[in-house]
Amino acid sequence: MEKLIPLAKKVTWVRQPSPRVKYPPELSEEQASTLISDIKDYQLIHGSLLKLVQSEQDNTVLSQPVGISVFPTLFPKTLFEEALALQRTYNKLYTAVAEDEDFSFRVLEGLIENDPLATCLWGIYEEVKKEGSVQDLSLGIWRNDYMLDIGGSQNELGIKQVEFNTIAVAGGTHGNRVSDMHQHLQATGAYRGAPGEQDQTIEITASSLPPNNTIQTITSGLVAAHSAYGPPKAPSMKQTCILFIVQPHNFNIADERPLEYALWSSSPPIPAYRLLFGADVLEYTTVTPSRELIYHPPSRPGLALEVSVVYFRSGFEVHEYNYVGRTARLHLERSRAIKCPNLLGHLCTFKKVQQALSRPGALKIFLRKEEVDRIEKTFTPMFPLDESKKGMEGRKIATNGKVACDYVLKPSLEGGGHNIYGSAIPEYLKGVAKEKWGGYVLMKKILPPSLNGILMSQRGIYEGSIVSELGIFGVCLWRRNEGVGQEKAEIVKELAPSWSFKTKDASVDEMSVVKGYGCFDSPVLVDLPVFAAVAGWRTKH
Amino acid sequence: MEKLIPLAKKVTWVRQPSPRVKYPPELSEEQASTLISDIKDYQLIHGSLLKLVQSEQDNTVLSQPVGISVFPTLFPKTLFEEALALQRTYNKLYTAVAEDEDFSFRVLEGLIENDPLATCLWGIYEEVKKEGSVQDLSLGIWRNDYMLDIGGSQNELGIKQVEFNTIAVAGGTHGNRVSDMHQHLQATGAYRGAPGEQDQTIEITASSLPPNNTIQTITSGLVAAHSAYGPPKAPSMKQTCILFIVQPHNFNIADERPLEYALWSSSPPIPAYRLLFGADVLEYTTVTPSRELIYHPPSRPGLALEVSVVYFRSGFEVHEYNYVGRTARLHLERSRAIKCPNLLGHLCTFKKVQQALSRPGALKIFLRKEEVDRIEKTFTPMFPLDESKKGMEGRKIATNGKVACDYVLKPSLEGGGHNIYGSAIPEYLKGVAKEKWGGYVLMKKILPPSLNGILMSQRGIYEGSIVSELGIFGVCLWRRNEGVGQEKAEIVKELAPSWSFKTKDASVDEMSVVKGYGCFDSPVLVDLPVFAAVAGWRTKH
Repeated sequence: MEKLIPLAKKVTWVRQPSPRVKYPPELSEEQASTLISDIKDYQLIHGSLLKLVQSEQDNTVLSQPVGISVFPTLFPKTLFEEALALQRTYNKLYTAVAEDEDFSFRVLEGLIENDPLATCLWGIYEEVKKEGSVQDLSLGIWRNDYMLDIGGSQNELGIKQVEFNTIAVAGGTHGNRVSDMHQHLQATGAYRGAPGEQDQTIEITASSLPPNNTIQTITSGLVAAHSAYGPPKAPSMKQTCILFIVQPHNFNIADERPLEYALWSSSPPIPAYRLLFGADVLEYTTVTPSRELIYHPPSRPGLALEVSVVYFRSGFEVHEYNYVGRTARLHLERSRAIKCPNLLGHLCTFKKVQQALSRPGALKIFLRKEEVDRIEKTFTPMFPLDESKKGMEGRKIATNGKVACDYVLKPSLEGGGHNIYGSAIPEYLKGVAKEKWGGYVLMKKILPPSLNGILMSQRGIYEGSIVSELGIFGVCLWRRNEGVGQEKAEIVKELAPSWSFKTKDASVDEMSVVKGYGCFDSPVLVDLPVFAAVAGWRTKH
Repeated sequence: MEKLIPLAKKVTWVRQPSPRVKYPPELSEEQASTLISDIKDYQLIHGSLLKLVQSEQDNTVLSQPVGISVFPTLFPKTLFEEALALQRTYNKLYTAVAEDEDFSFRVLEGLIENDPLATCLWGIYEEVKKEGSVQDLSLGIWRNDYMLDIGGSQNELGIKQVEFNTIAVAGGTHGNRVSDMHQHLQATGAYRGAPGEQDQTIEITASSLPPNNTIQTITSGLVAAHSAYGPPKAPSMKQTCILFIVQPHNFNIADERPLEYALWSSSPPIPAYRLLFGADVLEYTTVTPSRELIYHPPSRPGLALEVSVVYFRSGFEVHEYNYVGRTARLHLERSRAIKCPNLLGHLCTFKKVQQALSRPGALKIFLRKEEVDRIEKTFTPMFPLDESKKGMEGRKIATNGKVACDYVLKPSLEGGGHNIYGSAIPEYLKGVAKEKWGGYVLMKKILPPSLNGILMSQRGIYEGSIVSELGIFGVCLWRRNEGVGQEKAEIVKELAPSWSFKTKDASVDEMSVVKGYGCFDSPVLVDLPVFAAVAGWRTKH
């Protein structure tokens, strides 16, 4: 049995009223203006950009830098390493869940009846199952989001899971670029405080900025799946390719394209094409009688390739599933191509799954005892809002403004953009029919330590209290097994986890990158006492 | 004595009225629209961009793709190789001229009296000379521009020199990126015509697209000069750095920044900083009594570095030389830093120098007989407009609309943006005082073969007749010698030449990238008969 990577010892801390150590360092006006200008130019040169919405014309398109943190942000080194170390166990958990039909159905039953997206996906799952699946490999490219938590009454600083994203996870490329940028700026001395100031702040050293290989990690996952698929099976096919299933008019193209370029630059090159979710899937792909997926690129007349991997960067929003969209997804799912994610894997992105896994004892069918303990440490209390006993408890909290203020209400959708926060919850629920309440989960708010930072996006330059989210990218390829529980999935290839790091104004609820609230960032890894001194605490062993 | 690289045999051709071979290939609508979209995204991701003028704010900036040729453009392989092979001889020529005060003064005398920029630069040269120079190394980063010429009555296809640029030469980075893009698109099959079409066009193969290493070539030149400078000479200095002297508000930053990044990424990293021409030079640099140039970066409080190389990406426009600008240039020129270019090297960019070198016999003081023959082949007839015998000949042509239409009138300025073309010359000269005529040169128009292409820039998408310019990047470091003629400069390090390639609508005179006329491109190298068949000619041996 493999050995788990040991985690850091538990550390508690107490509030420290004495003056905090200042971070980020104070810069002179000249230094600050050069830094700001260097950042914009670096972003422009390195594709750290968003297309300006509706600016695209045939011949040109406007773009602007994606939001970033001017300084990298302090983060406890031990907890960063803990998040990376935990990912192997999380991979084991989610591969098992993504192969566990019984568990998924039990958890999602209420949604499958009421939520159109869940209904649709489950329906496709059932249809494919009836016909029989011809592909037992699946690829997961996941982002496991954490926040630091000050640990409530226990005063134990730790990382808590915000959500686990399993489809079309974004930010890998942007995170990589911004991490590279922070490293470049550090190397050029851009963060060096003035000589007199240096003692009063935390120095950003090269070794305190962890390397970021997310583009390569994701690409390697796709390459591993492509290789595992092997040569074309259809008799007339000579070549295989990876198909990115994408959304139209994506102004966040800079997060996707570098993955394609990396595949084409592999040795040997792996053909990678983009195909719009929906009608184009049906127009330009065919499924052979033995269910190979054949792609006929409209931009390559006369060419046909067998698809090794279907990589969804779309198909996670209910409006995509009109009749044609549903038919297209079914068409892809029936095929022999390896899906990233598979259907049950996609369903794992529903918050109901996260909430179900957080129930005491839920993990033990998937993990060993010591694994369960590690993972459960990262959970924060969650409640369903259905008619179960636990659900009734949740309803009581959600409808009481006084207690609801410590909670977040989350619909079972991908991403975090639709959450309702704190005291707004009771009022919001008044507008939702009670039979729909089962689609929501209530999550205790994570309380991060208070840090300061400077953020820059199309919204402006913000200086003040900030909150960060650490996203761990888990990438693994697995094979469906006939076993039960944790035996249902056999991991074939697992990449070393990588990460992204996003920071926002602490007074804003949304982490939306597109709106310029969520800013890409990287952590400066520091020892706990140092982190505590900046956050206004001191550690206690 | 070193052996010259042999050049291609002379080939003549005749017009061929039969239908031409079609190039670029016909694409389906789907194929074309994917190609266009792929190009914009590639440019956005790879910094192949221009800032939108006046769009820069503290927190953000808009950018758009620089103009490009949708397809790479056909070019005769032998002539491309000839242009590269000739550069070694051109390097020898221009290093010698850039150390030949007598020659420069003779050629520029009229300008030094009348042209404010020449007056100013020569004055600085004299002042530095009087004090005595403390640096005998100079760096040249040159772009030698050629066009194909159909060869007049001789019908001998060849390359003719348009101009030789010696200061702040641009386009190296953009050219590199666009060449990489064309190679990427070729590799992905984006240029493959439909199966039925393939026989009727020229296939763009991977081997027909020459590699482009211009960013690395320029960087290597800067690194060579930096290394040759050696360790800091000033006692208190610990580190040397390269200083880019730049213009404010440069929206073509994407052509400069990658060179800085490449220097910082060297092993060991070479510090590279940007400093505005003019007042900032005087504010943030000092010259020690032993004339080391010390830079005190305002963005790095407490830091001071000795400058190894001053790389001018500014200082080529007369308006930069107000009192402060002139003082700043003198300040830099007095210093021990290696200049790129040195002052006489800068003056070589004046068209008068090009015209003087084109006079029969002019080259023989700098080059051996067989070198002279090679270089002179690339010259097109040029006339001064001064009161010399040759000048009076030039005036006769320039004032006669019937013959002037075959000529271009060029003021002695950097770049090609101020030229007067053909029949507009006589009228234009009426508005210029006769004593200023000596500042102009008259150059016979180069007549390129007619090709078709598709260009895309902020102006729109253009499909039709095109004209290209091949720029050969010559990079070399040399030492001033006490010899005469070709002995005046000893080349210490010479990089293999690299290139850029620009294409414009044949009906437009200007090659301006900024206005969206000049579009970055790369050559598809083909055999002469193939080239001729597309251009509507056939070769004759």
